[in-house]
Amino acid sequence: MSKKAKTAITPTREENFPDWYQEVIKAADMAENSPVRGCMIIKPYGYALWENMQSVFDGMIKALGVRNAYFPLLIPLSFISREAEHVEGFAKECAVVTHHRLEAGEDGALVPAAPLEEPLVIRPTSETIIGDAMSRWVQSYRDLPLKLNQWCNVMRWEMRPRMFLRTSEFLWQEGHNALETEEEAKEDARKMLEVYADFAENSLAIPVIKGEKTADERFPGADITLTIEAMMQDGKALQAGTSHYLGQNFSKSCGIKFQGREGQEEFAYTTSWGISTRLIGAMIMAHGDDDGMIMPPRVAPYHVAIIPILKDDQDSAAVLDYAENLAAQLTKRGIRPHLDSSDERTPNKMWDAIKKGIPLRVEIGGREVEEGTLTHVRRDLGRDSKASCSVAEFVEKAQDLLDQIHDELFRRASVFRDERIHDVADLAGVEEFFKNDGVGFVKIDADKIADAEFERIAKEHSLTARCMPLDESSKVIIGKAY
Amino acid sequence: MSKKAKTAITPTREENFPDWYQEVIKAADMAENSPVRGCMIIKPYGYALWENMQSVFDGMIKALGVRNAYFPLLIPLSFISREAEHVEGFAKECAVVTHHRLEAGEDGALVPAAPLEEPLVIRPTSETIIGDAMSRWVQSYRDLPLKLNQWCNVMRWEMRPRMFLRTSEFLWQEGHNALETEEEAKEDARKMLEVYADFAENSLAIPVIKGEKTADERFPGADITLTIEAMMQDGKALQAGTSHYLGQNFSKSCGIKFQGREGQEEFAYTTSWGISTRLIGAMIMAHGDDDGMIMPPRVAPYHVAIIPILKDDQDSAAVLDYAENLAAQLTKRGIRPHLDSSDERTPNKMWDAIKKGIPLRVEIGGREVEEGTLTHVRRDLGRDSKASCSVAEFVEKAQDLLDQIHDELFRRASVFRDERIHDVADLAGVEEFFKNDGVGFVKIDADKIADAEFERIAKEHSLTARCMPLDESSKVIIGKAY
Repeated sequence: MSKKAKTAITPTREENFPDWYQEVIKAADMAENSPVRGCMIIKPYGYALWENMQSVFDGMIKALGVRNAYFPLLIPLSFISREAEHVEGFAKECAVVTHHRLEAGEDGALVPAAPLEEPLVIRPTSETIIGDAMSRWVQSYRDLPLKLNQWCNVMRWEMRPRMFLRTSEFLWQEGHNALETEEEAKEDARKMLEVYADFAENSLAIPVIKGEKTADERFPGADITLTIEAMMQDGKALQAGTSHYLGQNFSKSCGIKFQGREGQEEFAYTTSWGISTRLIGAMIMAHGDDDGMIMPPRVAPYHVAIIPILKDDQDSAAVLDYAENLAAQLTKRGIRPHLDSSDERTPNKMWDAIKKGIPLRVEIGGREVEEGTLTHVRRDLGRDSKASCSVAEFVEKAQDLLDQIHDELFRRASVFRDERIHDVADLAGVEEFFKNDGVGFVKIDADKIADAEFERIAKEHSLTARCMPLDESSKVIIGKAY
Repeated sequence: MSKKAKTAITPTREENFPDWYQEVIKAADMAENSPVRGCMIIKPYGYALWENMQSVFDGMIKALGVRNAYFPLLIPLSFISREAEHVEGFAKECAVVTHHRLEAGEDGALVPAAPLEEPLVIRPTSETIIGDAMSRWVQSYRDLPLKLNQWCNVMRWEMRPRMFLRTSEFLWQEGHNALETEEEAKEDARKMLEVYADFAENSLAIPVIKGEKTADERFPGADITLTIEAMMQDGKALQAGTSHYLGQNFSKSCGIKFQGREGQEEFAYTTSWGISTRLIGAMIMAHGDDDGMIMPPRVAPYHVAIIPILKDDQDSAAVLDYAENLAAQLTKRGIRPHLDSSDERTPNKMWDAIKKGIPLRVEIGGREVEEGTLTHVRRDLGRDSKASCSVAEFVEKAQDLLDQIHDELFRRASVFRDERIHDVADLAGVEEFFKNDGVGFVKIDADKIADAEFERIAKEHSLTARCMPLDESSKVIIGKAY
C-alpha cells in the first residue's frame, strides 16, 4: 500500500469537499463564524482580499460612469411591499427592526422598548429604497442614464449558513441604473454582465458561463436575470454575479417618471446588478488545493511571501536587511510583498505562506545573501517550480510570474470545467448522469425542462437550471449548486 | 440704504446658520433626508468626498500597522450588557431586531413573524463584539499589539436628526487596538488622536484642539476619552474625532487574556478610536460661505471645474476639444478635473461649481482657445483672484494653487477660532459671556467646573465642557456644541 502524501489540509477535497472548504478558510485565516447566528467575521487576510476586489471592480464601473452613493440600511415595510413579486421573494428571510430602545426588564435584563410605528426591514437588497430616491432625482430625459452603486452590507436570514457562500449578513455592491428606453436598459444589463465576466475571468481567474436565468430562477421583480455561472472543484455551480433587467416594474411601483424628448411623461426602465463576498468562496473552491488556498494574483492580499531563513549561527541581521531591501524594491513596482520576520520556525513560515495561497514564495538564507540570489517557488506549481536567480532578475520578472500564475489558474479551472459539461439528449440522460454521481453540469435543449418530469428529477437530485448560455440560448445548463 | 450683495445661499450664515447649513448641502447636491426617519441618503457628490476621506485616512492607519476587518452588524443583547457603563450609554438609543421573517397579516399587510430567541441590536459601536473576537485571537504577548479597524455603518436612534451631524445611521471607521501594557495603551490612544489631528488639519483644513474629555463627557466604558474639537462658524464646537483608552474594562468583560512574557496570565489593555461622516458636516460649517460649500482640496471630489463657454456663433467643438485636452493633462498629474459639457447656460454652470465648492474654476471660451490660454478663479478668494495664463502654465501650477487654497482655508479657520477663545476667571465670567450671546469658547481653570453652579449655567445656556487641552491641562474649554 503506497503511503498517502501528506497535505496541509485535512480532509482533502476528495475526502470531504465541504469540510475541506471550511478548513482552507481556517488555515488561511480568512474568516470565522461569529457568535451571532448566521453572521461571519471577515478576518484581516480575508478582508484585504475583498478590498482588492473592490478596488479593481470599483475602477471598472467608475470608468463606465457609475457613481457611488449610500442609501439607508433600514427599509420601511411599505416600501418592500410595493412590488408584488419582490415582496414574495424577500419578505420570508429578512431581519425586522421593531423597537428603538432597550430598557431593564423586571429581572434587570435588557428588553426591547419603544416600539416603532412601522417596523423596518434591514435591506435584503435596495431596489425599493433606491427606486424611491430615483423618483425624486429623475425629472427629464436629460437626467438619464442615472447609474448608481453602493458598497454595503445586506441581510437575508439564513437557516443553514456557510462562510462566504451563504451568511445572513454579507457585503456586496449593488448597482442600480435607470435608462430611457427598453433597448438601452436591456443593453445596460448585458453590459454589466460583461463587466462581471471580465472581472471574474481577468481578475479572479475564474472562467464563467454567461447566461440567462429561466423564469423560475429569476430575481423577484425582474423581467430578465442574467448570470455568470462558475464550476467549483466538486462539480457544483456557483452563481458568481447577476445583472437584472427590471423593465418598468420598479419604475412603476416607485414612480420613476420623466419628461421624454417629445414632452410626454414616461416611466424609466431600470436594471440592477450585484456581486458579493460570496466570490471569495468561489475563489477558494475554484483554485484551492489540498495544501490550502491559492490566491489569484490580481487580487491577492500579498503577491510575494518573503521568508528569511534565520539560523542562530548566522548573521540574521544581514538576512533581514537583504529581505527588507527586496520587499522595498517589489513595493516600488506595485507588487505586494509579505516579509515574515516572526520568530516562527522556517517550515512553519513556509506552510503558512502555502496555506494562505500567496502566489510566489521567496526564500532567503545566508548563502543567498552571500551570492546575491534568492530562491523562488510558485504556489500553483509547488516545489517543482523552485528556481534561483539574482534579486535584480526576480524583481524584473516578478510581475511576469504573477501573470503566468493567473493564466495557469484560469487554464486549469477552464480545463476542469470544460471536461465536466456533458451534452445529454433528454431528461432520462439528466437523471442517469446525476444518479451515477456524475460530477459537473449537463446541457440539454431548453424546452425539455418545461416537462413536469424535470421538477421531479431536479428535486430528487437537488438540481437547478443554472442558465441558458448567451452563446447557445436554445440550451439550458443544469447542475447542483451552492 | 446699501443694497445687499446677492448670495447663492439663502438664508446667509448671519441670518440663520442652521438653515444656511441645510441649504448648502442641498445646493451642493451632497445629501438629502430619506423617507426612513432619521436616516439620510448620501448623494454621489457627498459620497465621493467620503471616499476621498477614507482613502487618505486608510493609508495613514495602514502605515501604522492597522489592519481592516469586518465584524457582524448585529450584536446579541447579552454582549451589550457585559460592560456596565457601556450598556448605560448605548442601550437607550439603539435599533432592536426582534424577528427574522415577515408574513401577510389578516388584512394582507406584512407583519413581523418568527421572533428571535434573543433580540439583536444593530451595532451602535463594536467594542463588545470585537472584544469577543479578540478574546479568541489573543493568546500570547506575541499576538500583541493587535490593531484592527472596520469601515462600516452604525446606528444610534436619533429623535432630532440633522444631516451628517446627527443621523440614526451613519458611516464611520472604528479602530480597536489591544496592547500589552497600560503605558503602551495610553500611548496608543494619544497616537491615534495625533493621527486624527493630522488628518483634520492637513487633509480637511480644520484646525482642532486636542484635549481630554472630563469624566462626565467620557465614552461609556472608557477610562480616558481624548478628543479633537473644532470651532464652527457660528462659534459652536464640533467633536471631530475621539480616541479612548479603555483600560482593562473591556478586556475583563470580554475575556481578552494572554500569556505574558513571564508566563503569567494577563488581561490586555484596549483602545478604540473613531471618526465618521459627521466630519463632512464639520467641513461645511468650517469652510462654507454664503455662496455655498468650499471643499478642502486634499479630499475634494473635484479639484478643477472646467467650464467651456459655448456660444452658438462659435466653434463649440474646438472649445470642447481644448477643454478635454486640459482635463486629460490635469488627470495625468493626479488632479481631478470636472468638465461641465452639459447644455446648461454658462452662468448656471459657474454657480454650480461655486455652490459645490470646487476649489478651482477654469473658464474657456473661443478667445482662450485662439490664444492658447485660460481664465482661472479660486473658490476661496472669488472673482478678485481671476487670472489668465497659458494652459501649460496652469497645468504646471495647479497643484500649487490647490495647496495655497488648503493653506488659506486653514488660516482663515484658525484666525476665526483663535479670536473666539476667551479666557475667563470664574463661572460668573462664563455666564456673562454666553448670556450676552457670546460667540465661541471660553477657557477656565478646570477645577472651577466641579462646582454645582456649573451644572446650572451649563443647563441654562446649553453648554458643555468640551475638553481639557493637552497642552494646557489645568484648563477646560466650554462651549455650545453640535
